[in-house]
Amino acid sequence: MSNELNFSGGPGALPASVLQQLQQAMIALPDTGLSVLGMSHRSDWFRSVLDEAEANLRLLLDIPANYHVLFLQGGSSLQFSMLPMNVLRGTRQHADYIASGYWSAKAIPEARLEGEVRVAWDGQPHGYDRLPTEQELQLSPDAAYLHYVSNETVEGVQFTQTPGLPGVPLVADMSSDLLAGPLDVSRHAMIYAHAQKNLGPAGVTVVILRDSFANSPASPLPSLLDYRSHISSRSLYNTPPVFAIYALLLVTRWLRDDMGGLAAMAEINRQKASQLYQTLDKHAGLYHVHAHPQWRSQMNIAFSLPTPALQQQFLQGAQRQGLHGLEGHRSLGGLRASLYNAVTPQAVASLCQWLDAFASSTAL
Amino acid sequence: MSNELNFSGGPGALPASVLQQLQQAMIALPDTGLSVLGMSHRSDWFRSVLDEAEANLRLLLDIPANYHVLFLQGGSSLQFSMLPMNVLRGTRQHADYIASGYWSAKAIPEARLEGEVRVAWDGQPHGYDRLPTEQELQLSPDAAYLHYVSNETVEGVQFTQTPGLPGVPLVADMSSDLLAGPLDVSRHAMIYAHAQKNLGPAGVTVVILRDSFANSPASPLPSLLDYRSHISSRSLYNTPPVFAIYALLLVTRWLRDDMGGLAAMAEINRQKASQLYQTLDKHAGLYHVHAHPQWRSQMNIAFSLPTPALQQQFLQGAQRQGLHGLEGHRSLGGLRASLYNAVTPQAVASLCQWLDAFASSTAL
Repeated sequence: MSNELNFSGGPGALPASVLQQLQQAMIALPDTGLSVLGMSHRSDWFRSVLDEAEANLRLLLDIPANYHVLFLQGGSSLQFSMLPMNVLRGTRQHADYIASGYWSAKAIPEARLEGEVRVAWDGQPHGYDRLPTEQELQLSPDAAYLHYVSNETVEGVQFTQTPGLPGVPLVADMSSDLLAGPLDVSRHAMIYAHAQKNLGPAGVTVVILRDSFANSPASPLPSLLDYRSHISSRSLYNTPPVFAIYALLLVTRWLRDDMGGLAAMAEINRQKASQLYQTLDKHAGLYHVHAHPQWRSQMNIAFSLPTPALQQQFLQGAQRQGLHGLEGHRSLGGLRASLYNAVTPQAVASLCQWLDAFASSTAL
Repeated sequence: MSNELNFSGGPGALPASVLQQLQQAMIALPDTGLSVLGMSHRSDWFRSVLDEAEANLRLLLDIPANYHVLFLQGGSSLQFSMLPMNVLRGTRQHADYIASGYWSAKAIPEARLEGEVRVAWDGQPHGYDRLPTEQELQLSPDAAYLHYVSNETVEGVQFTQTPGLPGVPLVADMSSDLLAGPLDVSRHAMIYAHAQKNLGPAGVTVVILRDSFANSPASPLPSLLDYRSHISSRSLYNTPPVFAIYALLLVTRWLRDDMGGLAAMAEINRQKASQLYQTLDKHAGLYHVHAHPQWRSQMNIAFSLPTPALQQQFLQGAQRQGLHGLEGHRSLGGLRASLYNAVTPQAVASLCQWLDAFASSTAL
């Protein structure tokens, strides 16, 4: 086993026990004796993989029966377009979007290609370092839907309360915090999340949507971009990413059996984030956390050092300690530590030791 | 190692040496010491994976410099729409499509959502058991492009000569025979192929397209569905399927170094198919090959037995011999043996032994 620790914003770390099972599955699955990479997506084995992955997600997230659970390709970027193609295009309605960071801002021009978009709040003028209060949001009761990103991976800001108006379908991009803790699915018309953060390896995107939200689009869509194709084929419209979905199944089993569910996982995540923020705040003259305290993400901690030279020094030292993936997103620069589910408390303790050590060796 | 043999139409077999390298990469890549599933798609390591995968494809297929090589998601089904969205939508031109089997027929309604389509030939009336002669094709010199499927995976018919008119951009879905042998890329404006057949695991789609064919679409497209997004970002527009692309790299190395290139691979594939067809023809009263002899595919051999009961008996016996994936596609029924690159001559010999044994034990 490797002693290297991965704090990347994505593709992020996966649990060691999952990696070990995947290693075995490369050559021969316990169930079939064949490599997972040679299994047909039309086999009974893969149907049972899809079924159990869905059942585990329903159990972990308490997903109501009137919601579909779909396994798609194309990442959140494709959902930026599929959502308004299915729900907004050809209607007389508009959609509300909250611009709270890099990713939610990227969703807006894609939606504008399909229909009218109003920005309910824009955090760009202050560098996306906080989220809106309820009073600041300009929401319309007649919107086709309200779109928000629950956790901004780049800037490290995270909603702690669900925004929105009753009666307006709420859509959340939860790519970086789905499965990090319990969630009120029923408040949402649709939730989507791509891997690889907490779900499994890159290549699979989970869409959870209320049946009544998956109506006929106003005009016919490409089959692959119509939610109803995937609902009626039960995620087998075309060849799915078999390996990534199998890995997601193993991750959900790990959450269910080894971690004891999402409430327990959330408590661990709270402690991990709290330890890291305390360490950063202890050396507040050296480390600057991007997000205002009230909105700090438990998944992605974006921070910086006073100079690029110090940041380079910090990263090089971290590499030597086996601490990887601490570079900030290319759009923001600086540093970032991502504490997805599979990042252990021990890994966070190692990072905090390095933060302390670097602080004491740096005379400012 | 498993002794089970995989003749599935897809996801198909992968080379044993590739599976062994992938097994190691689950825990620690030789180059980085980290799991391949934890590597960032923005890392130097992954840039070098993309670069070498592209270079190997250029070498193996002799791809001219004025062609782009892209690694996308969504399978051929997404290409069925992306192609006409980019090239047909909003123009006054039509596109010609050859309907030669299950897959080429599926491409047509998707293209019709975007513009005018004319069917240059339709094999449906005789169950897609042969391909058109040059004289039978109704081609227009003013078409935006001509689309064909080089090998029909379901029915087992394969083009041996490239169709089309000079001056009309030619587009080929080569999902089931790309990398099975050498190819004149320069005859085509675009070639696409999804895994998992000869390329790697399901989840990655290769698009090879001439620079002059990737023009501005008539109206703005969703960024993820615009070829130019992927060209300018060099296949890093959003999080790509890192694992599947790494596996594809290993497959191209295997073809380059272990198999000695595509001419050598093609000769092996010819011999494999020839042995199987000879065995089937020897017992022609029992086994019926779907395709007319002139159009028989070297990749997918669709055949049948006189009764469903005999087919069941055949499949059960095959399973006991460790021969898997021999069921026909659900749309055609019957049986099918897929002889992708990674299916060894020894595996084909085992299948032929079982075909002989079943024939001698079956009194008709």
